[in-house]
Amino acid sequence: MSSRTVIRGGLVITASDEIHADVLIEDGRIAALAASGTPAAEAFTAERSEMGASPPEGWGRVIDATGKYVIPGGVDAHTHMELPFGGTFASDTFETGTRAAAWGGTTTIVDFAVQSVGHTLREGLDAWHAKAEGNCAIDYAFHMIVSDVNQETLKEMDLLVEEGVTSFKQFMAYPGVFYSDDGQILRAMQRSADNGGLIMMHAENGIAIDVLVEQALARGETDPRYHGEVRKALLEAEATHRAIRLAQVAGAPLYVVHVSAMEAVAELARARDEGLNVFGETCPQYLFLSTDNLAEPDFEGAKYVCSTPLRPREHQAKLWQGLRTNDLQVVSTDHCPFCFVGQKELGRGDFSKIPNGLPGVENRMDLLHQAVVDGHISRRRWIEIACATPARMFGMYPKKGTIAPGADADVVIYDPHAEQVMSAETHHMNVDYSAYEGRRTTGRVETVLSRGEPVITEREYTGHAGHGVYTPRSTCQYLN
Amino acid sequence: MSSRTVIRGGLVITASDEIHADVLIEDGRIAALAASGTPAAEAFTAERSEMGASPPEGWGRVIDATGKYVIPGGVDAHTHMELPFGGTFASDTFETGTRAAAWGGTTTIVDFAVQSVGHTLREGLDAWHAKAEGNCAIDYAFHMIVSDVNQETLKEMDLLVEEGVTSFKQFMAYPGVFYSDDGQILRAMQRSADNGGLIMMHAENGIAIDVLVEQALARGETDPRYHGEVRKALLEAEATHRAIRLAQVAGAPLYVVHVSAMEAVAELARARDEGLNVFGETCPQYLFLSTDNLAEPDFEGAKYVCSTPLRPREHQAKLWQGLRTNDLQVVSTDHCPFCFVGQKELGRGDFSKIPNGLPGVENRMDLLHQAVVDGHISRRRWIEIACATPARMFGMYPKKGTIAPGADADVVIYDPHAEQVMSAETHHMNVDYSAYEGRRTTGRVETVLSRGEPVITEREYTGHAGHGVYTPRSTCQYLN
Amino acid sequence: MSSRTVIRGGLVITASDEIHADVLIEDGRIAALAASGTPAAEAFTAERSEMGASPPEGWGRVIDATGKYVIPGGVDAHTHMELPFGGTFASDTFETGTRAAAWGGTTTIVDFAVQSVGHTLREGLDAWHAKAEGNCAIDYAFHMIVSDVNQETLKEMDLLVEEGVTSFKQFMAYPGVFYSDDGQILRAMQRSADNGGLIMMHAENGIAIDVLVEQALARGETDPRYHGEVRKALLEAEATHRAIRLAQVAGAPLYVVHVSAMEAVAELARARDEGLNVFGETCPQYLFLSTDNLAEPDFEGAKYVCSTPLRPREHQAKLWQGLRTNDLQVVSTDHCPFCFVGQKELGRGDFSKIPNGLPGVENRMDLLHQAVVDGHISRRRWIEIACATPARMFGMYPKKGTIAPGADADVVIYDPHAEQVMSAETHHMNVDYSAYEGRRTTGRVETVLSRGEPVITEREYTGHAGHGVYTPRSTCQYLN
Amino acid sequence: MSSRTVIRGGLVITASDEIHADVLIEDGRIAALAASGTPAAEAFTAERSEMGASPPEGWGRVIDATGKYVIPGGVDAHTHMELPFGGTFASDTFETGTRAAAWGGTTTIVDFAVQSVGHTLREGLDAWHAKAEGNCAIDYAFHMIVSDVNQETLKEMDLLVEEGVTSFKQFMAYPGVFYSDDGQILRAMQRSADNGGLIMMHAENGIAIDVLVEQALARGETDPRYHGEVRKALLEAEATHRAIRLAQVAGAPLYVVHVSAMEAVAELARARDEGLNVFGETCPQYLFLSTDNLAEPDFEGAKYVCSTPLRPREHQAKLWQGLRTNDLQVVSTDHCPFCFVGQKELGRGDFSKIPNGLPGVENRMDLLHQAVVDGHISRRRWIEIACATPARMFGMYPKKGTIAPGADADVVIYDPHAEQVMSAETHHMNVDYSAYEGRRTTGRVETVLSRGEPVITEREYTGHAGHGVYTPRSTCQYLN
Repeated sequence: MSSRTVIRGGLVITASDEIHADVLIEDGRIAALAASGTPAAEAFTAERSEMGASPPEGWGRVIDATGKYVIPGGVDAHTHMELPFGGTFASDTFETGTRAAAWGGTTTIVDFAVQSVGHTLREGLDAWHAKAEGNCAIDYAFHMIVSDVNQETLKEMDLLVEEGVTSFKQFMAYPGVFYSDDGQILRAMQRSADNGGLIMMHAENGIAIDVLVEQALARGETDPRYHGEVRKALLEAEATHRAIRLAQVAGAPLYVVHVSAMEAVAELARARDEGLNVFGETCPQYLFLSTDNLAEPDFEGAKYVCSTPLRPREHQAKLWQGLRTNDLQVVSTDHCPFCFVGQKELGRGDFSKIPNGLPGVENRMDLLHQAVVDGHISRRRWIEIACATPARMFGMYPKKGTIAPGADADVVIYDPHAEQVMSAETHHMNVDYSAYEGRRTTGRVETVLSRGEPVITEREYTGHAGHGVYTPRSTCQYLN
Repeated sequence: MSSRTVIRGGLVITASDEIHADVLIEDGRIAALAASGTPAAEAFTAERSEMGASPPEGWGRVIDATGKYVIPGGVDAHTHMELPFGGTFASDTFETGTRAAAWGGTTTIVDFAVQSVGHTLREGLDAWHAKAEGNCAIDYAFHMIVSDVNQETLKEMDLLVEEGVTSFKQFMAYPGVFYSDDGQILRAMQRSADNGGLIMMHAENGIAIDVLVEQALARGETDPRYHGEVRKALLEAEATHRAIRLAQVAGAPLYVVHVSAMEAVAELARARDEGLNVFGETCPQYLFLSTDNLAEPDFEGAKYVCSTPLRPREHQAKLWQGLRTNDLQVVSTDHCPFCFVGQKELGRGDFSKIPNGLPGVENRMDLLHQAVVDGHISRRRWIEIACATPARMFGMYPKKGTIAPGADADVVIYDPHAEQVMSAETHHMNVDYSAYEGRRTTGRVETVLSRGEPVITEREYTGHAGHGVYTPRSTCQYLN
Repeated sequence: MSSRTVIRGGLVITASDEIHADVLIEDGRIAALAASGTPAAEAFTAERSEMGASPPEGWGRVIDATGKYVIPGGVDAHTHMELPFGGTFASDTFETGTRAAAWGGTTTIVDFAVQSVGHTLREGLDAWHAKAEGNCAIDYAFHMIVSDVNQETLKEMDLLVEEGVTSFKQFMAYPGVFYSDDGQILRAMQRSADNGGLIMMHAENGIAIDVLVEQALARGETDPRYHGEVRKALLEAEATHRAIRLAQVAGAPLYVVHVSAMEAVAELARARDEGLNVFGETCPQYLFLSTDNLAEPDFEGAKYVCSTPLRPREHQAKLWQGLRTNDLQVVSTDHCPFCFVGQKELGRGDFSKIPNGLPGVENRMDLLHQAVVDGHISRRRWIEIACATPARMFGMYPKKGTIAPGADADVVIYDPHAEQVMSAETHHMNVDYSAYEGRRTTGRVETVLSRGEPVITEREYTGHAGHGVYTPRSTCQYLN
Repeated sequence: MSSRTVIRGGLVITASDEIHADVLIEDGRIAALAASGTPAAEAFTAERSEMGASPPEGWGRVIDATGKYVIPGGVDAHTHMELPFGGTFASDTFETGTRAAAWGGTTTIVDFAVQSVGHTLREGLDAWHAKAEGNCAIDYAFHMIVSDVNQETLKEMDLLVEEGVTSFKQFMAYPGVFYSDDGQILRAMQRSADNGGLIMMHAENGIAIDVLVEQALARGETDPRYHGEVRKALLEAEATHRAIRLAQVAGAPLYVVHVSAMEAVAELARARDEGLNVFGETCPQYLFLSTDNLAEPDFEGAKYVCSTPLRPREHQAKLWQGLRTNDLQVVSTDHCPFCFVGQKELGRGDFSKIPNGLPGVENRMDLLHQAVVDGHISRRRWIEIACATPARMFGMYPKKGTIAPGADADVVIYDPHAEQVMSAETHHMNVDYSAYEGRRTTGRVETVLSRGEPVITEREYTGHAGHGVYTPRSTCQYLN
């Protein structure tokens, strides 16, 4: 006997369709969709009776989604739970972070395992498995940060691709920490061109930026807002262009993470017009926040310090445009929270010591729905950039990212009319501030299923640590 | 009691998904999809028994699609059945043309009703309804060719949009026949910006081209290949750019038909990078044929005379690239056949008298599948450009263009491994030659359902004239 | 015995050089330049004695230019003296207009002879010769406005080129008056590709603009500022692009007159990057005035009505940039004055009836020197865009446009430190307002020689009507 | 008493003018120009008599230039005499190299003094002064190669600018030798933004190239032609773009040396369209030679090994176009000869060990005149890219680079009709091969004056080592 759930009467929205359909879930997967009101849909109900007069509690669940959206669970392809950075750690563990993700309608995260210089990829990956295993409320997968390209790590890349870690992040910033030089980048790209891996790039010219940081500090410019001034848009665009050309030389695809500068979007657009397999991700903070936030007084700007940095407000329109024209394909969070007290404060008097990162894993689906309400994107595009494309980009489709027969039953019942106010007082992330404190949005997650299991049930947490499992991935499914 | 059909075991391919699913059809619509092999899928069969011990023949049909693709019926958004042109008529009637379309896996055409100068849109539309009604094997809809923009026709446009004719074609070519000047174009675009209509543009600078035609003929350059030389790529690109800017001034979207020049693709790409709602269609003849065909001796080149003309071979790669980068969104046929004998021959000694047009409605789905085999596009992109996007672009989605609960059951069972050779001897279009004579392709239509009814059954025609019905359309669903 | 003049001690500025040199003038031409203070320069003086003990007054003139600039007389390649337009005539005659030009440091104008529809080019040219002959204070030449392209006029173009009228203006605006359609433009371009003529284009999509004019008036938008709103920048850019592509098809060079929109500059830049012989002219009014002027109350905006229209202020920076990057090559005035009283007033209540044009022939050299003072351009670039390039562009170099041995002695002694205030009260143009009323500028014409004869002598008019002679021109000397 | 020379009857060609003028030289400088045949010109002769009945030999020289061009001596802004490279030295000393330059019509070279890592700029400059002083046949100046940017060298840059070394070369290639990282580049650019210096960039991504070199050698690809394959055009374009953006961040102008890839030209054009002060130099080898030469058998390809490398033939057209559109401004030689025997041969079996460099200082003016004959550029453009612009770019104008009163009398009498065949047997460079062996060209240097002194007299060497003097330079005169 198997578990069954029927979701009735909602508007099923995927990246491609909006249909009035009932959804039948069997054994944690989408078994069938039927047009609401048809005999076929009614038959979904009939089958419940097969389970006998009094099925065990939870079996044969029927969810009434009338007036609601039925959407795929969000896929957040860029999180950093428990990341060590600048002498401290991101404040969300896999337990707190994945629970918050579920509250926000996200059912899969792809986090970054970190290779430390001098260690193997395997060591880093094992460490991250240890952190996550048994602790997650939702499913998770890993990218691998490659800090040290050499003959051994190149060989390890092949092995990792085979076992489902199919994407590798490199940094053109952070010299001395994560930084790879252009030769290391080229070698990793060549390898990924062979093994099917996808290079993800933090594209900022960190060598040049560090000069500007040093000069700013020497001038006494220590406030958080200088973080935004020294990490110049042109140096993001430059690095983006450089990564594109290196990828072109290597014959490899490229995924640029956390694009924030309109000049960088222009470089992506140019490359895509040339037919290159070049992709760009942006994040809610770049779409909704700006250097105005970085300039908030009393060191409050530190809350918004992340890299790439927030940009002046006029960049936002070009990012939205890029999302509409598909010059940007994915919105992830780069969730990497540090508490204001005790963590962000490490950088008082020296912006370069502020831990880089923002909380956001819980806010992404709602902020992007607000963008639907505001007319920036369509409903289907919302699902595409937040669910379907990240799943495809990182080899999890159609298991994740859509509602289709055979897919995992990661489903969100979303109330498009409910209103909420974002706040650290009510959010579930383990961090003492919200980057969107006081922001009023329309739309709210009601119920979340992960492989058919209710994690959030009518705005109550009904999941548990350890439900979420590691999800090995195939290679990129988004190439043209 | 209702009709039911189950399609078992195929790979269901839509623009967004490839899933192993069984498809249940009720009353001409897709009722449900279920993952193959699940209890939910098996239940599709069980329900047959509801119809009693001996259902009437044809009820409860089960189609075995094992090893086959199950795809949405093709939507050909650009056909010209029975079009009067140059003193003759396109040789396919709605009866012969739609039957051939069905043979080729196309289940919806959007044909062009023609307003003649001095007449109302209504008169033209009525005339085309009269030609089509009762004669079609598959469903059909109409665009309206506007030859004469004036206060009356502008008002008529509003009415037509309301009754489902939501797209209007104008010509920057053919002065004295279909030609609109930039003022007429601007007015029509302004009107469509208000009423939701979509302007479709034949973008060639016909005024300049006519000068070159006259000069070529005066130099004794009368062979078909001169048709390709005088209709210069730069003059297609110029008109494309002009149409884009006029649409921008009007605040209206724009759909450019039969794009053949790579320079025109570049203009579309530029406009799309600017975030404009500008769309481009190309046709199989531009993807598979070239000026080499126009130069075939013994007046054979006349078979390939169409406008925009075929281009040198190097343009093909840029068209494929445009289809991959989504700078081109749709592949239609511009099906407009004229027999070589008696029709194309009207232009012996004067290429400008050759009726413009090619047959193709039967070949499109197969040629594009061949492009999948050849690696130009993915399977999903095949369905997107041939089914889903044309349906969305012209307001018929998800009724047409996809396989989803609630959609019309326009379904093709496609054998991806069968081989065929295209030939006038075997094709079903009413024209004495094939533009692709002797071309070997992989993939073949096996069975075609139109609203659940079998039109082609295992490569036998089982449809009938009159099955196809007129399909009013909503406004464009593809805007961003 | 010949006349001699020596100009001593000034800074001789040409498009390429800035040298401290004395200039020797013999018989109306530059005979020699010598480094100031060298024996060779001193010898210039010695020769005066050859003329005997008491030469007639005026012979052997020595001009002390210490602390001054010695620059070539300005070449204004775009003036419309006595132009019939909209039922009235431009208010400067060749006599008043060329005298004002001299006051402003301009020693050559190229005016536009007009072909009326139905008449020959010859008739138009003869009429303009009759207006100018015997009346001009400075030298003059003619472009030919071609209003009616046909077999006869095409042949006449060849003849005109041979006799020194080597440039032909066409209009994409003003349907029913000067307008040429794209076929006529293409034919004229083809002809000029053969005979060496240069097509000058008024690039605005007049057909589309007339629709917008009609609609604006119908909405009651009759004030001068609507002139700027309906003649949209995009429609200038569109026409610019179209003219470029037609020229490319014809294999002919192209000169676009009075470029005012930054989007049009972008089209020129694109074409030039492709290596095309495409040139652009702008005018002081686009560099110094804006739509703010058009919006001046009490119908004052009418003073600034010209076509192409003034643009919003942000276009100015892009025009200056274009002048620096050589995407724009020439600054002419499009001098076409109409008095506010009695002429501009024709358009009260209907902006489309305001005669199009501004006075400016007297202001150009000073305004551009102000741009040097303001840092927009260098001194040499000032001379290049105002003297040398217009002379080269229209086949008068090095006779006009430079100071070099053999050149006509059209020389201006310019005081770079004097200040002035522009005003209708003090200017010499025959028009009742100044477009730059009250504007304070640094730099002033002191003395002007035309072929060695003093026309302005230390800010006194010493010339006379009839001194100026017709100057036949060779073909364009600026092609690459 | 002073020396005088008169050049009679030639066509004086400068970057801006072509005039029939006689040239008077006094005391090593151009004293005056007079229109040939005028009394002013005749007076040049008369003055000879001032020197008495029998002036000493060589005084009062008259050169008959009838039928010849009189042009400014060439300015070669990129030579490497005696450069140490790869364990050997460039085979031309300042004595042999400058003599050969004079033979080729070049009267000024700007050579590169080299800072070695760990040493001061001063040490390098002193060493180069020692090499050059007393040995040169023509005038010379120095750029400074900065291999080691640090606080001391940044300060030294200021001093060098003050004493006339106003340009600094950095390398994005050659890691471990000349290479600067992006931080060092940014710092040097910032400094030059302050002190007026001009950064010259070797723009190739050497870090990435070294990976490809290593991989090629590991595959056994050791022939010279692989030099061209690993130093990819995309990696030149990438570095060009990066240098541009770093300069933009620093607010400094940029001069990119030896541009060979059309993709790099495109980056320069893009930056210039944006109004940036970005300049590009190419060299005759990129205009006349190609990868076909690198592929010559029997190790002959080694003769053509230089960096940036020769490119496939199709790049040439884009370089010529760039020279016409002024996206490239200068043609220098990058003269850096190594004998085939004993020097180039160091790289047999390993292309990476072939000394990089070609001879060319003697060939530049003739090859570019051939380009005039072939229609690639105009005569004036020839002088502009080879004389005037390099002089302006590097602060030597109008002393060098033009023929104008006050300028140094560096003058070439050039016979435009003479024919010659380039060959190692007849050239004067100290190297055992010619890169242009057997090439027939039209045009030849007849006589060369350096500051009025004849260095080449009717194709005989009449100069001497030590005539040439060091020429301090002002800052860049080419900014807009």
